[in-house]
Amino acid sequence: MPEQPANPTPAHNDLDSMLSRKFGKEVANYFSGSPLNRVGFLREDHKFLSQALQHPSTSFLVCNELQPLIDKAEKDKSPKKVGGHLKFIGFDDVKAVVGEDPYAGGEKTMVEQYDSRRYIPQMIFLGIDEKAKDGLEYQSKNLYKGAPYFAVDVTPKEGVKEACEKLIKDLEGRGLAFSQAPGGRVMDIDAQHAAIYAEARALLDWNARNPFCAACGQPTMSVNGGFKRICPPKDSSRPDDRPSCVTRKGISNLCFPRTDPTVIMAVVNSANTHLLLGRQRRWPPHWYSTLAGFAEPAESIEEAVRREVYEESGILVGRVVIHSTQPWPYPANLMIGAIGQAIPEGEKVDLGNDPELDDAKWVPFEEVRESLRVGTSGLGEDAGPEYKEGGLRLPPSTAIANQLMTAVCNGFVGGSAKM
Amino acid sequence: MPEQPANPTPAHNDLDSMLSRKFGKEVANYFSGSPLNRVGFLREDHKFLSQALQHPSTSFLVCNELQPLIDKAEKDKSPKKVGGHLKFIGFDDVKAVVGEDPYAGGEKTMVEQYDSRRYIPQMIFLGIDEKAKDGLEYQSKNLYKGAPYFAVDVTPKEGVKEACEKLIKDLEGRGLAFSQAPGGRVMDIDAQHAAIYAEARALLDWNARNPFCAACGQPTMSVNGGFKRICPPKDSSRPDDRPSCVTRKGISNLCFPRTDPTVIMAVVNSANTHLLLGRQRRWPPHWYSTLAGFAEPAESIEEAVRREVYEESGILVGRVVIHSTQPWPYPANLMIGAIGQAIPEGEKVDLGNDPELDDAKWVPFEEVRESLRVGTSGLGEDAGPEYKEGGLRLPPSTAIANQLMTAVCNGFVGGSAKM
Ligand SMILES: [Zn+2]
Ligand SMILES: [Zn+2]
Repeated sequence: MPEQPANPTPAHNDLDSMLSRKFGKEVANYFSGSPLNRVGFLREDHKFLSQALQHPSTSFLVCNELQPLIDKAEKDKSPKKVGGHLKFIGFDDVKAVVGEDPYAGGEKTMVEQYDSRRYIPQMIFLGIDEKAKDGLEYQSKNLYKGAPYFAVDVTPKEGVKEACEKLIKDLEGRGLAFSQAPGGRVMDIDAQHAAIYAEARALLDWNARNPFCAACGQPTMSVNGGFKRICPPKDSSRPDDRPSCVTRKGISNLCFPRTDPTVIMAVVNSANTHLLLGRQRRWPPHWYSTLAGFAEPAESIEEAVRREVYEESGILVGRVVIHSTQPWPYPANLMIGAIGQAIPEGEKVDLGNDPELDDAKWVPFEEVRESLRVGTSGLGEDAGPEYKEGGLRLPPSTAIANQLMTAVCNGFVGGSAKM
Repeated sequence: MPEQPANPTPAHNDLDSMLSRKFGKEVANYFSGSPLNRVGFLREDHKFLSQALQHPSTSFLVCNELQPLIDKAEKDKSPKKVGGHLKFIGFDDVKAVVGEDPYAGGEKTMVEQYDSRRYIPQMIFLGIDEKAKDGLEYQSKNLYKGAPYFAVDVTPKEGVKEACEKLIKDLEGRGLAFSQAPGGRVMDIDAQHAAIYAEARALLDWNARNPFCAACGQPTMSVNGGFKRICPPKDSSRPDDRPSCVTRKGISNLCFPRTDPTVIMAVVNSANTHLLLGRQRRWPPHWYSTLAGFAEPAESIEEAVRREVYEESGILVGRVVIHSTQPWPYPANLMIGAIGQAIPEGEKVDLGNDPELDDAKWVPFEEVRESLRVGTSGLGEDAGPEYKEGGLRLPPSTAIANQLMTAVCNGFVGGSAKM
């Protein structure tokens, strides 16, 4: 079972209401709803990347050990209960770390000059904000206009240690600091920034986690603005060409970022009166959430929901409908939120198959509804003032688990059309 | 854009009707609907795996270069237009390849005795068929009863070359043969077998594709009945312990099978009268399907649908609802089928962003409906007798694209409740 969403402070009300006006009944979860157009088809175009890097409208999100730079002043000013805003910096700030033009010469040349001894600080091209004024204008097959966004890993290491340390010191001198989110899990920044951070973190982390080729064991290099890693045929640090590798023929999924599909499901009983909730051993007292787990190869999401619920609780689920999804960048999950209904002969809780949960139980909708009103918070946080000790505690509205429970309590099962 | 489903011969009518009686409106796609309980929590239990391996009720699916053993006689007898049935064999057949008891001694001992020079033929524990009579009975925390299923890679290589070659010859002597599906893409076996094969193939392929650790470059070993690969701390072929590896601390997603979430979407225009279809250059004339592509890190499925449709066709999509999902083991995709609706100001087709498609166009529901009736088939196959040359051709009902188009033509958008 992957980590349950347990992030404090719903901060995406504006986004939610915007999306609901725009998209009808669709639920947009925290970490989705990015304001950027990724223009992924431009990632191979180094002429574009060079111009984007150096444009005055360009924003850089710098991360140190995956923790992003935060503007504490913005945080304190914020009228909402938001833990922070990202602080973006400019090209002049990061130049000493990334170099004057790391994209000069084109991707093909970079691959030919690959040297496994040389550390290149990881950069990610995140996309362009098309609503920004005075953004970059770039003519490819179409004309693209917008303010570019990049992420840069400024963790002080190897060849760029001094430049990173100097930058970090400079930033601290300006009253800025890197997030110190517990476990590196930033979950309280405002919603549009959360979506930008999720993209940056997922790609920085994937590149850092995969320095070697799983097919041949040789070191790999990052290309395509950080969205691809290849196993180059040459290495300047070796006299001969490197041994052949199957990933160099055709297209290999090993070259592309990995995303792990995860199921998370609100399961109602056959009478549609009770919700199945479970709790993990390490959670605070009275804390429960919906069940969740990783999808396995060669099963549909609907099958994964039924398997996980059976394994963890013994309950047999019949119908399954997918409700909404949430990117979850810790490290690379895609939470697929479903609503399922138990079959009448399969409603007995049995924790004996996979002893992963501390408890699982059926809770009346009334009690869930009350807890959604007074008992939600992040895992490490206090519930609201109306919460009475001993009552059910649930995750906050930034967690898809909360959205699924809310949908069920609002009559999703047996209710009106989804579209 | 990943390969579009284009598999011949709908063969899952029985399963469909079974699931629809059992689960209401849920759509079960080809490659899902496995009859096996994976009992994944028993994969670490070598006492169970040993007993399962040697039980008389146990079935072995053998694959040579990922092509499964097929019973041609069954194929010819079949009243349905099905390309084949899997042929399962017994422990006596595979013993010479896998050994008398590869699970003897437990997983911990296997890890301690790891030797990177030794080739161990890959085995996958697929699950148990609980409906089988005279199956294995195994008492763990609960009692499990069923006929076990394993997959075994019998590709003749390294230390087991002779044993595999002998087995293959024996099987051929019995009139059996390995599938020769083009590109190794088996897509015409009956539906329950297709789901078993999908599990076997996905896991055999993942193990074969990932012999090295992406974190440190050292060779890895298969454990947990083929569902996990670890980077062992010792190697009998080396005098000292191996260098440290980050995947040995805590839980690393690199140790678990990879599944790539893919979006595939039927997009209707804002008036709900036309469907957006696209075609790839290498497809036969008149062939179209729904658009599709890989989800990227840190985007919701709904966002991935909007991004892919924009990139490939220029169309701007508003609301997105997920319809159903389909495992797709070529090599490791999870197809997430969605239905979306264009916004009125974003209905102009523009192929200029990502020049991946040969064409994209709006097709009236009437024309789609007619083609679903007379113009569906696998990519390499003829359409039905009523098809007239020049008419629209579409993928068969085993493809989720077909199911999505059918749903739209049956009034999914603006229609009745999904659950
Ligand atoms: Zn390689
Ligand atoms: Zn390793």
